Amino acid sequence: MKKFAIILSGCGVFDGAEIHEATLTMLAIKKQGAEYEIFAPDKPQHHVINHLTGQPTDEQRNVLVEAARIARGNIKDLKQFNAREVDALIMPGGFGVAKNLSTWAFDGPEGTVDAEVSKAIRDMISLRKPVGALCISPVLLAQVLGKVEITIGNDKDTIEALEKKGAIHKQTTHGEVIRDSHLPVFTTPCYMLDASILQIAEGADNIVKAMHAEMKN
Amino acid sequence: MKKFAIILSGCGVFDGAEIHEATLTMLAIKKQGAEYEIFAPDKPQHHVINHLTGQPTDEQRNVLVEAARIARGNIKDLKQFNAREVDALIMPGGFGVAKNLSTWAFDGPEGTVDAEVSKAIRDMISLRKPVGALCISPVLLAQVLGKVEITIGNDKDTIEALEKKGAIHKQTTHGEVIRDSHLPVFTTPCYMLDASILQIAEGADNIVKAMHAEMKN
Repeated sequence: MKKFAIILSGCGVFDGAEIHEATLTMLAIKKQGAEYEIFAPDKPQHHVINHLTGQPTDEQRNVLVEAARIARGNIKDLKQFNAREVDALIMPGGFGVAKNLSTWAFDGPEGTVDAEVSKAIRDMISLRKPVGALCISPVLLAQVLGKVEITIGNDKDTIEALEKKGAIHKQTTHGEVIRDSHLPVFTTPCYMLDASILQIAEGADNIVKAMHAEMKN
Repeated sequence: MKKFAIILSGCGVFDGAEIHEATLTMLAIKKQGAEYEIFAPDKPQHHVINHLTGQPTDEQRNVLVEAARIARGNIKDLKQFNAREVDALIMPGGFGVAKNLSTWAFDGPEGTVDAEVSKAIRDMISLRKPVGALCISPVLLAQVLGKVEITIGNDKDTIEALEKKGAIHKQTTHGEVIRDSHLPVFTTPCYMLDASILQIAEGADNIVKAMHAEMKN
Protein backbone atom coordinates (compact mmCIF):
# COMPACT_ATOMS: atom_id res chain seq x y z
CA MET A 1 0.00 0.00 0.00
CA LYS A 2 1.43 3.35 -1.08
CA LYS A 3 1.60 6.14 1.49
CA PHE A 4 0.88 9.78 0.65
CA ALA A 5 2.03 12.59 2.92
CA ILE A 6 -0.42 15.50 2.97
CA ILE A 7 0.79 18.95 4.07
CA LEU A 8 -1.94 21.23 5.47
CA SER A 9 -1.62 24.97 6.09
CA GLY A 10 -4.32 25.46 8.74
CA CYS A 11 -8.11 25.04 8.57
CA GLY A 12 -10.22 27.35 6.41
CA VAL A 13 -9.87 28.78 2.92
CA PHE A 14 -9.07 32.41 3.84
CA ASP A 15 -6.27 31.85 6.36
CA GLY A 16 -5.50 28.12 6.20
CA ALA A 17 -6.02 24.94 4.19
CA GLU A 18 -9.09 24.79 1.94
CA ILE A 19 -11.28 22.30 3.77
CA HIS A 20 -12.99 20.69 0.76
CA GLU A 21 -9.72 20.22 -1.11
CA ALA A 22 -8.08 18.72 1.98
CA THR A 23 -10.98 16.36 2.72
CA LEU A 24 -11.44 15.29 -0.89
CA THR A 25 -7.70 14.67 -1.27
CA MET A 26 -7.89 12.30 1.69
CA LEU A 27 -10.92 10.57 0.15
CA ALA A 28 -9.22 10.32 -3.26
CA ILE A 29 -6.17 8.66 -1.71
CA LYS A 30 -8.30 6.05 0.08
CA LYS A 31 -10.28 5.44 -3.13
CA GLN A 32 -7.00 4.48 -4.83
CA GLY A 33 -6.34 1.91 -2.09
CA ALA A 34 -3.50 4.00 -0.69
CA GLU A 35 -3.06 5.51 2.78
CA TYR A 36 -2.05 8.94 4.04
CA GLU A 37 -0.25 10.68 6.87
CA ILE A 38 -0.97 14.35 7.55
CA PHE A 39 1.61 17.02 8.43
CA ALA A 40 1.59 20.73 9.16
CA PRO A 41 4.23 23.18 10.39
CA ASP A 42 4.09 23.97 14.12
CA LYS A 43 4.08 27.78 13.88
CA PRO A 44 1.70 30.72 14.27
CA GLN A 45 -0.70 31.46 11.42
CA HIS A 46 0.08 34.70 9.57
CA HIS A 47 -3.33 35.92 10.80
CA VAL A 48 -6.89 34.79 11.51
CA ILE A 49 -9.72 35.70 9.13
CA ASN A 50 -13.36 35.70 10.26
CA HIS A 51 -14.79 33.55 7.46
CA LEU A 52 -18.25 35.10 7.83
CA THR A 53 -17.14 38.72 7.31
CA GLY A 54 -13.84 38.17 5.49
CA GLN A 55 -12.14 40.52 7.96
CA PRO A 56 -9.01 39.82 10.03
CA THR A 57 -9.49 39.36 13.78
CA ASP A 58 -7.04 39.90 16.65
CA GLU A 59 -6.90 36.19 17.48
CA GLN A 60 -3.75 34.12 17.27
CA ARG A 61 -3.88 30.53 16.07
CA ASN A 62 -1.30 27.85 15.28
CA VAL A 63 -1.10 26.18 11.85
CA LEU A 64 -0.57 22.64 13.21
CA VAL A 65 -3.27 22.96 15.90
CA GLU A 66 -5.87 24.25 13.43
CA ALA A 67 -4.92 21.73 10.72
CA ALA A 68 -5.54 19.04 13.38
CA ARG A 69 -9.26 19.87 13.01
CA ILE A 70 -9.27 18.54 9.45
CA ALA A 71 -7.10 15.59 10.50
CA ARG A 72 -9.31 14.68 13.49
CA GLY A 73 -6.20 14.99 15.68
CA ASN A 74 -4.24 12.49 13.59
CA ILE A 75 -1.47 14.79 12.40
CA LYS A 76 2.28 15.26 12.83
CA ASP A 77 4.59 18.23 13.11
CA LEU A 78 6.16 18.76 9.66
CA LYS A 79 9.57 18.58 11.41
CA GLN A 80 8.96 14.81 11.60
CA PHE A 81 8.48 14.46 7.83
CA ASN A 82 10.94 12.03 6.25
CA ALA A 83 10.81 11.65 2.47
CA ARG A 84 12.19 8.12 2.77
CA GLU A 85 9.13 7.01 4.75
CA VAL A 86 6.45 8.05 2.23
CA ASP A 87 5.80 7.37 -1.44
CA ALA A 88 4.26 10.69 -2.48
CA LEU A 89 3.64 14.21 -1.19
CA ILE A 90 0.49 16.22 -1.89
CA MET A 91 -0.55 19.74 -0.91
CA PRO A 92 -4.16 20.96 -1.00
CA GLY A 93 -4.75 24.69 -1.49
CA GLY A 94 -6.29 27.52 0.51
CA PHE A 95 -4.79 30.95 1.29
CA GLY A 96 -2.84 29.29 4.11
CA VAL A 97 -0.45 28.03 1.43
CA ALA A 98 0.31 31.62 0.40
CA LYS A 99 0.22 33.02 3.96
CA ASN A 100 1.58 30.30 6.25
CA LEU A 101 3.61 27.95 4.01
CA SER A 102 5.09 30.85 2.05
CA THR A 103 4.87 34.63 1.84
CA TRP A 104 3.42 34.52 -1.69
CA ALA A 105 0.21 36.38 -0.71
CA PHE A 106 2.26 39.40 0.37
CA ASP A 107 5.52 39.23 -1.59
CA GLY A 108 4.58 37.34 -4.77
CA PRO A 109 7.57 35.91 -6.66
CA GLU A 110 9.95 37.80 -4.33
CA GLY A 111 8.58 35.86 -1.36
CA THR A 112 10.03 32.94 0.56
CA VAL A 113 8.84 29.40 1.31
CA ASP A 114 8.75 27.89 4.81
CA ALA A 115 12.04 26.02 5.24
CA GLU A 116 10.38 22.73 6.27
CA VAL A 117 8.00 22.82 3.30
CA SER A 118 10.84 23.65 0.94
CA LYS A 119 12.93 20.77 2.32
CA ALA A 120 10.02 18.32 2.02
CA ILE A 121 9.55 19.21 -1.67
CA ARG A 122 13.28 19.07 -2.46
CA ASP A 123 13.78 15.77 -0.63
CA MET A 124 10.89 14.12 -2.50
CA ILE A 125 12.12 15.35 -5.87
CA SER A 126 15.68 14.22 -5.18
CA LEU A 127 14.26 10.72 -4.50
CA ARG A 128 12.17 10.98 -7.72
CA LYS A 129 8.96 10.57 -5.72
CA PRO A 130 5.75 12.28 -6.95
CA VAL A 131 4.80 15.69 -5.58
CA GLY A 132 1.26 17.00 -6.18
CA ALA A 133 -0.19 20.46 -5.65
CA LEU A 134 -3.81 21.63 -5.86
CA CYS A 135 -5.22 25.12 -6.33
CA ILE A 136 -2.70 27.81 -5.24
CA SER A 137 -0.13 25.27 -3.93
CA PRO A 138 1.77 25.16 -7.26
CA VAL A 139 3.25 28.55 -6.27
CA LEU A 140 5.33 26.58 -3.77
CA LEU A 141 6.68 24.38 -6.57
CA ALA A 142 7.60 27.38 -8.72
CA GLN A 143 9.34 29.00 -5.76
CA VAL A 144 11.27 25.88 -4.74
CA LEU A 145 11.93 24.25 -8.13
CA GLY A 146 11.96 27.23 -10.51
CA LYS A 147 11.68 25.84 -14.04
CA VAL A 148 8.79 23.41 -13.75
CA GLU A 149 5.59 22.88 -15.78
CA ILE A 150 2.56 23.62 -13.62
CA THR A 151 -1.01 24.91 -13.73
CA ILE A 152 -2.99 27.19 -11.46
CA GLY A 153 -5.89 27.38 -13.92
CA ASN A 154 -6.23 30.64 -15.83
CA ASP A 155 -5.61 33.60 -13.47
CA LYS A 156 -3.47 36.05 -15.48
CA ASP A 157 -1.73 37.83 -12.60
CA THR A 158 -0.76 34.61 -10.85
CA ILE A 159 0.45 33.11 -14.14
CA GLU A 160 2.67 36.15 -14.78
CA ALA A 161 4.09 35.96 -11.27
CA LEU A 162 4.78 32.21 -11.67
CA GLU A 163 6.57 32.82 -14.96
CA LYS A 164 8.83 35.33 -13.20
CA LYS A 165 10.04 32.39 -11.08
CA GLY A 166 10.89 30.50 -14.27
CA ALA A 167 7.83 28.20 -14.19
CA ILE A 168 6.18 27.12 -17.44
CA HIS A 169 2.45 27.63 -17.00
CA LYS A 170 -0.18 25.50 -18.76
CA GLN A 171 -3.76 26.81 -18.76
CA THR A 172 -6.27 24.22 -17.61
CA THR A 173 -9.91 23.85 -16.69
CA HIS A 174 -11.78 21.75 -14.09
CA GLY A 175 -10.29 18.35 -13.34
CA GLU A 176 -7.28 18.64 -15.62
CA VAL A 177 -3.86 17.59 -14.33
CA ILE A 178 -0.48 18.78 -15.62
CA ARG A 179 2.63 16.64 -15.16
CA ASP A 180 6.03 18.17 -15.71
CA SER A 181 7.86 16.63 -18.68
CA HIS A 182 10.87 15.70 -16.56
CA LEU A 183 10.05 15.83 -12.86
CA PRO A 184 7.28 13.78 -11.15
CA VAL A 185 5.40 17.01 -10.35
CA PHE A 186 1.58 17.13 -10.71
CA THR A 187 -0.77 20.13 -10.47
CA THR A 188 -4.52 20.77 -10.86
CA PRO A 189 -6.45 24.05 -10.44
CA CYS A 190 -9.45 23.19 -8.14
CA TYR A 191 -10.76 26.37 -6.43
CA MET A 192 -8.33 28.60 -8.39
CA LEU A 193 -11.20 28.30 -10.87
CA ASP A 194 -14.79 29.19 -9.97
CA ALA A 195 -15.66 25.62 -9.08
CA SER A 196 -18.35 23.55 -7.39
CA ILE A 197 -17.46 20.92 -4.82
CA LEU A 198 -18.16 18.26 -7.49
CA GLN A 199 -15.35 19.69 -9.60
CA ILE A 200 -13.03 19.74 -6.57
CA ALA A 201 -13.73 16.04 -6.05
CA GLU A 202 -12.93 15.41 -9.73
CA GLY A 203 -9.67 17.39 -9.54
CA ALA A 204 -8.56 15.61 -6.36
CA ASP A 205 -9.44 12.20 -7.83
CA ASN A 206 -7.57 12.91 -11.06
CA ILE A 207 -4.37 14.21 -9.51
CA VAL A 208 -4.18 11.39 -6.94
CA LYS A 209 -4.90 8.82 -9.66
CA ALA A 210 -2.11 10.24 -11.87
CA MET A 211 0.36 10.25 -8.96
CA HIS A 212 -0.63 6.71 -7.94
CA ALA A 213 -0.17 5.45 -11.51
CA GLU A 214 3.30 7.03 -11.60
CA MET A 215 4.31 5.13 -8.45
CA LYS A 216 3.34 1.81 -9.98
CA ASN A 217 5.62 2.37 -13.01
CA MET B 1 -33.71 21.23 -8.41
CA LYS B 2 -34.29 20.21 -4.79
CA LYS B 3 -32.69 22.30 -2.05
CA PHE B 4 -31.19 20.82 1.12
CA ALA B 5 -30.57 22.95 4.18
CA ILE B 6 -27.45 21.85 6.09
CA ILE B 7 -27.08 22.80 9.76
CA LEU B 8 -23.48 22.97 11.01
CA SER B 9 -22.38 23.15 14.64
CA GLY B 10 -18.94 24.75 14.25
CA CYS B 11 -15.77 23.46 12.57
CA GLY B 12 -13.91 20.47 13.97
CA VAL B 13 -14.94 17.11 15.39
CA PHE B 14 -14.19 17.76 19.07
CA ASP B 15 -16.02 21.07 19.54
CA GLY B 16 -17.94 21.65 16.31
CA ALA B 17 -19.14 20.01 13.10
CA GLU B 18 -17.23 16.96 11.88
CA ILE B 19 -15.43 18.31 8.82
CA HIS B 20 -15.43 15.16 6.67
CA GLU B 21 -19.11 14.49 7.30
CA ALA B 22 -20.00 18.11 6.50
CA THR B 23 -17.91 18.21 3.31
CA LEU B 24 -19.06 14.79 2.09
CA THR B 25 -22.71 15.69 2.76
CA MET B 26 -22.28 18.73 0.51
CA LEU B 27 -20.64 16.55 -2.15
CA ALA B 28 -23.38 13.90 -1.88
CA ILE B 29 -26.09 16.54 -2.39
CA LYS B 30 -24.41 17.90 -5.52
CA LYS B 31 -23.93 14.35 -6.84
CA GLN B 32 -27.71 13.90 -6.66
CA GLY B 33 -28.17 17.01 -8.80
CA ALA B 34 -29.58 18.94 -5.84
CA GLU B 35 -28.33 22.15 -4.22
CA TYR B 36 -27.71 23.22 -0.62
CA GLU B 37 -27.80 26.19 1.68
CA ILE B 38 -25.78 26.14 4.91
CA PHE B 39 -26.95 27.43 8.30
CA ALA B 40 -25.52 27.62 11.80
CA PRO B 41 -26.67 29.27 15.02
CA ASP B 42 -25.05 32.64 15.79
CA LYS B 43 -23.92 31.91 19.36
CA PRO B 44 -20.76 31.15 21.33
CA GLN B 45 -19.37 27.62 21.16
CA HIS B 46 -19.66 25.71 24.42
CA HIS B 47 -15.85 25.61 24.44
CA VAL B 48 -12.81 25.33 22.19
CA ILE B 49 -10.80 22.10 22.05
CA ASN B 50 -7.19 22.03 20.85
CA HIS B 51 -7.54 19.22 18.28
CA LEU B 52 -3.86 18.30 18.58
CA THR B 53 -3.89 17.68 22.34
CA GLY B 54 -7.61 17.06 22.91
CA GLN B 55 -7.55 19.61 25.75
CA PRO B 56 -9.86 22.63 26.18
CA THR B 57 -8.29 26.06 25.66
CA ASP B 58 -9.32 29.46 27.07
CA GLU B 59 -10.34 30.76 23.63
CA GLN B 60 -13.87 31.82 22.75
CA ARG B 61 -15.28 31.11 19.30
CA ASN B 62 -18.67 31.54 17.63
CA VAL B 63 -20.53 28.61 16.06
CA LEU B 64 -21.63 30.51 12.94
CA VAL B 65 -18.24 32.15 12.38
CA GLU B 66 -16.35 28.85 12.66
CA ALA B 67 -18.91 26.93 10.56
CA ALA B 68 -18.31 29.58 7.88
CA ARG B 69 -14.87 27.98 7.38
CA ILE B 70 -16.46 24.77 6.07
CA ALA B 71 -18.97 26.84 4.05
CA ARG B 72 -16.26 29.10 2.50
CA GLY B 73 -18.20 32.08 3.89
CA ASN B 74 -21.41 31.06 2.15
CA ILE B 75 -23.56 30.49 5.24
CA LYS B 76 -26.60 32.00 6.95
CA ASP B 77 -27.64 32.59 10.53
CA LEU B 78 -30.03 29.78 11.51
CA LYS B 79 -32.51 32.51 12.51
CA GLN B 80 -33.09 32.99 8.77
CA PHE B 81 -34.05 29.34 8.22
CA ASN B 82 -37.52 28.93 6.75
CA ALA B 83 -38.80 25.38 6.26
CA ARG B 84 -41.03 26.56 3.40
CA GLU B 85 -37.98 27.61 1.35
CA VAL B 86 -36.14 24.27 1.39
CA ASP B 87 -37.01 20.69 0.46
CA ALA B 88 -34.96 18.81 3.05
CA LEU B 89 -32.87 19.36 6.17
CA ILE B 90 -29.68 17.45 6.97
CA MET B 91 -27.35 17.60 9.97
CA PRO B 92 -23.78 16.22 9.88
CA GLY B 93 -22.26 15.09 13.19
CA GLY B 94 -19.34 16.12 15.37
CA PHE B 95 -19.31 16.88 19.11
CA GLY B 96 -20.62 20.35 18.28
CA VAL B 97 -24.04 18.74 17.85
CA ALA B 98 -23.93 17.55 21.45
CA LYS B 99 -22.21 20.67 22.81
CA ASN B 100 -23.49 23.61 20.75
CA LEU B 101 -26.78 22.46 19.19
CA SER B 102 -27.86 20.69 22.38
CA THR B 103 -26.55 19.93 25.86
CA TRP B 104 -26.49 16.16 25.20
CA ALA B 105 -22.72 15.84 25.88
CA PHE B 106 -23.24 17.10 29.44
CA ASP B 107 -26.84 16.28 30.36
CA GLY B 108 -27.66 13.26 28.18
CA PRO B 109 -31.40 12.62 27.81
CA GLU B 110 -32.16 15.29 30.45
CA GLY B 111 -30.54 17.92 28.21
CA THR B 112 -32.10 20.57 25.99
CA VAL B 113 -31.90 21.34 22.28
CA ASP B 114 -31.11 24.80 20.89
CA ALA B 115 -34.46 26.48 20.24
CA GLU B 116 -33.67 27.37 16.61
CA VAL B 117 -32.53 23.83 15.84
CA SER B 118 -35.59 22.38 17.52
CA LYS B 119 -37.90 24.71 15.57
CA ALA B 120 -36.18 23.84 12.26
CA ILE B 121 -36.73 20.11 12.87
CA ARG B 122 -40.35 20.55 14.00
CA ASP B 123 -41.19 22.85 11.08
CA MET B 124 -39.78 20.41 8.53
CA ILE B 125 -41.63 17.45 10.04
CA SER B 126 -44.91 19.36 10.19
CA LEU B 127 -44.53 20.01 6.44
CA ARG B 128 -43.67 16.29 5.90
CA LYS B 129 -40.27 17.23 4.48
CA PRO B 130 -37.30 14.85 4.96
CA VAL B 131 -34.92 15.39 7.87
CA GLY B 132 -31.59 13.55 7.89
CA ALA B 133 -29.03 13.15 10.68
CA LEU B 134 -25.51 11.67 10.55
CA CYS B 135 -23.32 10.31 13.34
CA ILE B 136 -24.35 11.78 16.73
CA SER B 137 -27.01 14.14 15.25
CA PRO B 138 -29.85 11.62 15.72
CA VAL B 139 -29.76 12.57 19.44
CA LEU B 140 -31.38 15.85 18.34
CA LEU B 141 -34.20 13.92 16.68
CA ALA B 142 -34.81 11.78 19.78
CA GLN B 143 -34.85 14.89 21.94
CA VAL B 144 -37.18 16.86 19.68
CA LEU B 145 -39.42 14.10 18.30
CA GLY B 146 -39.35 11.48 21.08
CA LYS B 147 -40.70 8.25 19.62
CA VAL B 148 -38.80 7.95 16.34
CA GLU B 149 -36.82 5.11 14.73
CA ILE B 150 -33.17 6.10 14.43
CA THR B 151 -29.64 4.71 14.43
CA ILE B 152 -26.41 5.93 15.93
CA GLY B 153 -24.60 2.68 15.08
CA ASN B 154 -23.90 0.35 18.00
CA ASP B 155 -22.73 2.38 21.02
CA LYS B 156 -24.51 0.84 24.04
CA ASP B 157 -24.56 3.86 26.35
CA THR B 158 -25.83 6.23 23.69
CA ILE B 159 -28.50 3.71 22.63
CA GLU B 160 -29.71 3.40 26.23
CA ALA B 161 -29.88 7.16 26.58
CA LEU B 162 -31.79 7.50 23.30
CA GLU B 163 -34.28 4.88 24.42
CA LYS B 164 -34.91 6.91 27.58
CA LYS B 165 -36.19 9.67 25.28
CA GLY B 166 -38.62 7.19 23.71
CA ALA B 167 -36.61 6.61 20.52
CA ILE B 168 -36.57 3.17 18.90
CA HIS B 169 -32.96 2.34 18.11
CA LYS B 170 -31.89 0.15 15.17
CA GLN B 171 -28.31 -1.14 15.19
CA THR B 172 -26.50 -0.51 11.93
CA THR B 173 -23.08 -0.73 10.37
CA HIS B 174 -21.20 1.42 7.80
CA GLY B 175 -23.32 3.04 5.12
CA GLU B 176 -26.68 1.78 6.38
CA VAL B 177 -29.60 4.21 6.57
CA ILE B 178 -32.67 3.91 8.82
CA ARG B 179 -35.95 5.59 7.86
CA ASP B 180 -38.67 5.92 10.45
CA SER B 181 -41.79 3.90 9.55
CA HIS B 182 -44.02 6.97 9.74
CA LEU B 183 -41.99 10.17 9.65
CA PRO B 184 -39.59 11.18 6.83
CA VAL B 185 -36.66 10.92 9.23
CA PHE B 186 -33.36 9.38 8.06
CA THR B 187 -30.25 8.47 10.07
CA THR B 188 -26.85 6.85 9.40
CA PRO B 189 -23.96 6.21 11.84
CA CYS B 190 -20.80 7.55 10.06
CA TYR B 191 -18.07 8.35 12.65
CA MET B 192 -20.18 6.98 15.53
CA LEU B 193 -18.57 3.78 14.22
CA ASP B 194 -14.82 3.39 13.88
CA ALA B 195 -14.86 4.42 10.22
CA SER B 196 -12.55 5.43 7.39
CA ILE B 197 -13.27 8.48 5.28
CA LEU B 198 -14.39 6.09 2.49
CA GLN B 199 -17.15 4.81 4.75
CA ILE B 200 -18.18 8.37 5.63
CA ALA B 201 -18.54 9.13 1.92
CA GLU B 202 -20.67 6.00 1.54
CA GLY B 203 -22.90 6.92 4.49
CA ALA B 204 -23.37 10.50 3.26
CA ASP B 205 -24.13 9.30 -0.27
CA ASN B 206 -26.66 6.75 0.97
CA ILE B 207 -28.59 9.03 3.31
CA VAL B 208 -28.77 11.87 0.77
CA LYS B 209 -29.86 9.43 -1.95
CA ALA B 210 -32.63 8.05 0.29
CA MET B 211 -33.84 11.55 1.18
CA HIS B 212 -33.72 12.66 -2.45
CA ALA B 213 -35.73 9.61 -3.55
CA GLU B 214 -38.33 10.41 -0.89
CA MET B 215 -38.78 13.92 -2.28
CA LYS B 216 -39.48 12.62 -5.76
CA ASN B 217 -42.32 10.39 -4.55
